[in-house]
Amino acid sequence: MPGAMEDIMSEKEAEESHRQDSANLLLFILLLTLTILSIWLFKHRRFRFLHESGLAMVYGLLAGVVLRYGIHVPTDVNNVTLSCELEDSPATLLINVSGKFYEYTMRSEISPKDINNVHDNEMLQKVTFDPEVFFNILLPPIIFYAGYSLKRRHFFRNLGSILAYAFIGTVISCIVIGLIMYGCVKLMALIGQLNGDFYFTDCLLFGAFISATDPVTVLAIFNELQADVDLYALLFGESVLNDAVAIVLSSSIVAYQPVGVGSHNFDVSAMFKSFGLFLGIFSGSFALGSATGVVTALVTKFTKLRDFQLLETALFFLMSWSTFLLAEACGFTGVVAVLFCGITQAHYTYNNLSPESRIRTKQLFELLNFLAENFIFSYMGLTLFTFESHAFNPTFIVAAFLAVFLGRAANIYPLSFLLNLGRRKKIGSNLQHMMMFAGLRGAMAFALAIRDTATYARQMMFSTTLLIVFFTVWVFGGGTTQMLSWLQIRVGVDPDQEHSANLDHSQQDGSEGDQRNTKAESAWLFRLWYTFDHNYLKPILTHSGPPLTTTLPGWCGPIARFLTSPLAYQNQEQLKDDDSDLILNDGDISLTYGDSSLTTTSDRRNLIQNLEDAQEQELASGEHELVIRGTRLVLPVENTEPAFDLKLPESPGPQLM
Amino acid sequence: MPGAMEDIMSEKEAEESHRQDSANLLLFILLLTLTILSIWLFKHRRFRFLHESGLAMVYGLLAGVVLRYGIHVPTDVNNVTLSCELEDSPATLLINVSGKFYEYTMRSEISPKDINNVHDNEMLQKVTFDPEVFFNILLPPIIFYAGYSLKRRHFFRNLGSILAYAFIGTVISCIVIGLIMYGCVKLMALIGQLNGDFYFTDCLLFGAFISATDPVTVLAIFNELQADVDLYALLFGESVLNDAVAIVLSSSIVAYQPVGVGSHNFDVSAMFKSFGLFLGIFSGSFALGSATGVVTALVTKFTKLRDFQLLETALFFLMSWSTFLLAEACGFTGVVAVLFCGITQAHYTYNNLSPESRIRTKQLFELLNFLAENFIFSYMGLTLFTFESHAFNPTFIVAAFLAVFLGRAANIYPLSFLLNLGRRKKIGSNLQHMMMFAGLRGAMAFALAIRDTATYARQMMFSTTLLIVFFTVWVFGGGTTQMLSWLQIRVGVDPDQEHSANLDHSQQDGSEGDQRNTKAESAWLFRLWYTFDHNYLKPILTHSGPPLTTTLPGWCGPIARFLTSPLAYQNQEQLKDDDSDLILNDGDISLTYGDSSLTTTSDRRNLIQNLEDAQEQELASGEHELVIRGTRLVLPVENTEPAFDLKLPESPGPQLM
Repeated sequence: MPGAMEDIMSEKEAEESHRQDSANLLLFILLLTLTILSIWLFKHRRFRFLHESGLAMVYGLLAGVVLRYGIHVPTDVNNVTLSCELEDSPATLLINVSGKFYEYTMRSEISPKDINNVHDNEMLQKVTFDPEVFFNILLPPIIFYAGYSLKRRHFFRNLGSILAYAFIGTVISCIVIGLIMYGCVKLMALIGQLNGDFYFTDCLLFGAFISATDPVTVLAIFNELQADVDLYALLFGESVLNDAVAIVLSSSIVAYQPVGVGSHNFDVSAMFKSFGLFLGIFSGSFALGSATGVVTALVTKFTKLRDFQLLETALFFLMSWSTFLLAEACGFTGVVAVLFCGITQAHYTYNNLSPESRIRTKQLFELLNFLAENFIFSYMGLTLFTFESHAFNPTFIVAAFLAVFLGRAANIYPLSFLLNLGRRKKIGSNLQHMMMFAGLRGAMAFALAIRDTATYARQMMFSTTLLIVFFTVWVFGGGTTQMLSWLQIRVGVDPDQEHSANLDHSQQDGSEGDQRNTKAESAWLFRLWYTFDHNYLKPILTHSGPPLTTTLPGWCGPIARFLTSPLAYQNQEQLKDDDSDLILNDGDISLTYGDSSLTTTSDRRNLIQNLEDAQEQELASGEHELVIRGTRLVLPVENTEPAFDLKLPESPGPQLM
Repeated sequence: MPGAMEDIMSEKEAEESHRQDSANLLLFILLLTLTILSIWLFKHRRFRFLHESGLAMVYGLLAGVVLRYGIHVPTDVNNVTLSCELEDSPATLLINVSGKFYEYTMRSEISPKDINNVHDNEMLQKVTFDPEVFFNILLPPIIFYAGYSLKRRHFFRNLGSILAYAFIGTVISCIVIGLIMYGCVKLMALIGQLNGDFYFTDCLLFGAFISATDPVTVLAIFNELQADVDLYALLFGESVLNDAVAIVLSSSIVAYQPVGVGSHNFDVSAMFKSFGLFLGIFSGSFALGSATGVVTALVTKFTKLRDFQLLETALFFLMSWSTFLLAEACGFTGVVAVLFCGITQAHYTYNNLSPESRIRTKQLFELLNFLAENFIFSYMGLTLFTFESHAFNPTFIVAAFLAVFLGRAANIYPLSFLLNLGRRKKIGSNLQHMMMFAGLRGAMAFALAIRDTATYARQMMFSTTLLIVFFTVWVFGGGTTQMLSWLQIRVGVDPDQEHSANLDHSQQDGSEGDQRNTKAESAWLFRLWYTFDHNYLKPILTHSGPPLTTTLPGWCGPIARFLTSPLAYQNQEQLKDDDSDLILNDGDISLTYGDSSLTTTSDRRNLIQNLEDAQEQELASGEHELVIRGTRLVLPVENTEPAFDLKLPESPGPQLM
């Protein structure tokens, strides 16, 4: 029975394909396992020159070499070339084979030179994932975790600068790189090195890709060494937001469709359309992400799910995942939505979760982030050898490195200068140099570049992006520790001590001084937001006070009563939350101070020995005493600077948003 | 530029398809969210008549109704029918469209009647997942979690019976159901109701599918009410193993390829080949699963990963996942491998993990299990309305229900009778009735049935399986609490009290009595295994004693020293582990007894009030006293039976394996 034989044949092929897929995934799991064991080994021996991302890339590279040159698997000839004349390349085909009908779907376009290579390509092709896997499966957990684990206090304190670097800086970088690359490409065309079309929009697109920084390596080291908290906040905040900006920017550039024959000519209306698209996608994703966070906050506030941690954690996970799907289904960008969802969840929903669910959700996303990130970096290493259409061009590569360097400089230095005109706590030049240095490229740049490698231009951009990522992660990532000491950036900084030290200066004005100082410190816009958030948003979405029945006008009475949690009457002040102690309350300064001192017991690890004993005594005896004293004490610890061989940065003044 | 337009067109289609996929997943997330909120509501109000699985099915059903009858989405006409004469239906096609080449892959066969319906089918088709999703993504976490959370003490105590029910019982059930259905099918053919071929192998296959029980609902209720522990162990163990047996059995039946023209004739050699395949796949999967568990145990034993919980948890997760992929890549059954991996991980690796990682891994897999299970049940409800090729036939359905009932009876009663000839603690008839009742069908039966619905026979089997699952989950699941009281099965049983009660009888023989009794209780094979495990496997794979240097022969010296953990010298006895206190040690009986009493503080919740006060006093004062006394005490608690309106089962004697 021929039909049955065909059934068996196609079942066999399906099974063969399934076994191949399993084997591919197994390869990655092996790489990840090796990475984990090596990370442990490095941590064990305090080896800081190769961070986990760089390590994962190395293993990916090695696997790529083996796959490319070591393994040759003869593949079955099971392709058939039909030549049928068609007008169009449809998405689905119905083929009539001896009376049976089969449905075929389009997989990809094959360039003519590859037709005869289809068989040999199979092995390597199979280890290559559809680029959308990155945007649909791997990047969302990474970006969500970045938003969910944001250190909000320092983030909001530096919000203005972060927004400047992330938006304006990324656009500057994109344009600068685009211009330089365009010049390079023109040069290449002149000397005959260009083998295909390369338009200005392609150069701009490259600029957009490669402006997405990913200093995960640097930040990990900053975290371990407890480096300057503002620097950490600036770098982290910038990288998290400029990923979002880079995605939407590249979508907008790709969508640039000018009217007229020359599809890459300059067309003002098309440019404005792209700009509008950028705004629309960004705001839409922001709105959706925040909305889901708000809904989750309300659900966790008004139900007693906290009694059932499994249900609570599952709900949290599902709603965060739904943000991504909702944004994608509506045509926005899921990754951007997921970022703002993470920030909103951390700001509101987190307070409503039971203590165990807080831990569970953090651990869950921490695990997902870890696996996804190392997977991407392994894949990057692998791709160097498994990607079929690399286009390496020395001129382009050299120009790209130069452009990236100059683009970063054009981003950091001018903006820092402008920001310093307004900031109280200036961004010192050594911090600026560090920010230059820490402009590593990583997962986002790679994912954007690999998304579409159909044309010659895109292939060259992808190959070059790979090299830039390798170089920055290995060289700059590895050199972070040296750079920190060379630039004399302080380490071993206690974040809360920092906070208190700044306040100490302001306390000398007297008890009203902090309020006045706070108001003076903060930009008007931020103060507005903070008041709104403190008095309305937090009481609506969480159990914190002040109760809405007191803050809302009389006619809102019934709604206010409905929305006000019983706990809000007890929590007259905002719930104490490490990361959101933005501004001191008018209440007991020493109590707050006492709280923050106590919470930093674990942060004191890196302070020098001769301080520690004093601190231990202080803390051991000090807890009750601080509460009782009720005066604004200055504990000895904050006047002593760690006696490193690192010099202090410029004198820190009070913070200005 | 026509090429560009095509690019844009296919990009648009790809995006459209992506948005549709996102919307589909979003639907399921919505269903899961509703399920979670409803579960919370039910738990809040102690509503036990509709468990989460049944609830998820209801929501799936409602969504299915809406999708089928409520929504009509006009779809674009983007299919093209080519008629080209071909010899064969190849897996891949290269189509030449005006000089550009496109690769098409085979999607599925379309039956002639559906050709014109392809457009209308699209909406519903899109909500239908590839059945392999169940076996590759959804079932593994469920089965792994079942293995990882096995209550090993009671499982091993009843191992013989469990194996009997799972292997012999499933085969009996399969054959009985197959025969009855074959009779029914012949009848249907006679009266002209049969619209397609339906062979005996199909009937046997149906028997294999539908023999996979899934009493998750019943077990959840058992857990809450603390019902008889042996019943729990028997049901749980049987269901977990018979899932594995059912999968491999159905693969073997499908692989039955007799020589000769009639592909469904009886052929002894083909039957033996199938049998050999069964053995081979089962043992191979078992071996692979255990091997990965062993490797993970060794890795966690010899590294200090426990200092880094994120790395430890990530490694554990990756290695467990790799089991699945490895088994699939080697042509075995991933789900079966993952089951034995879970059991092995729970038995060995768990002891090597840091306390925090133990919690993390349990919580991680608990969450995955929860999400996957409810997803499948929602999907089941949905499929009733979205599946395109249902074949409902009243005769077949009625016969199927009858067959399932009789098959279960033929499984339980004869085997129980035979087992009771050898068991010390007989399986009472009310327990047998409960086991009959608790034969719910669920995720595994569904997944097996939906795996291949190409022929008329398979479609009818699938439709009937759906109905059987619905009925058993809703009716039997909902009626569990009533059934428990009607059959007078005891609830509120303290598992450790039970254990001690049994031992108490054996203690009357004197201090050597327990050892002798234990030996007498246990089957020889099990004793052999236990000794091997205790003296060799556990010391090799975990940090428990006795040290290998003492148990291995002299010539193994160097290896023994290498493999023996420093902790083993301290832990002369096996690590105390709630779930694996299979047999009392020769050591301090009262200490063990004291330990087991103390660990059950949380298990005493459901005991009646007049006991609780006595217990509280006893426990509060008793801890030190028990240790000091050093005699084999009989605490008052074990002689008092809870004064329920439930009668006791037949007098429990000592356990026999």
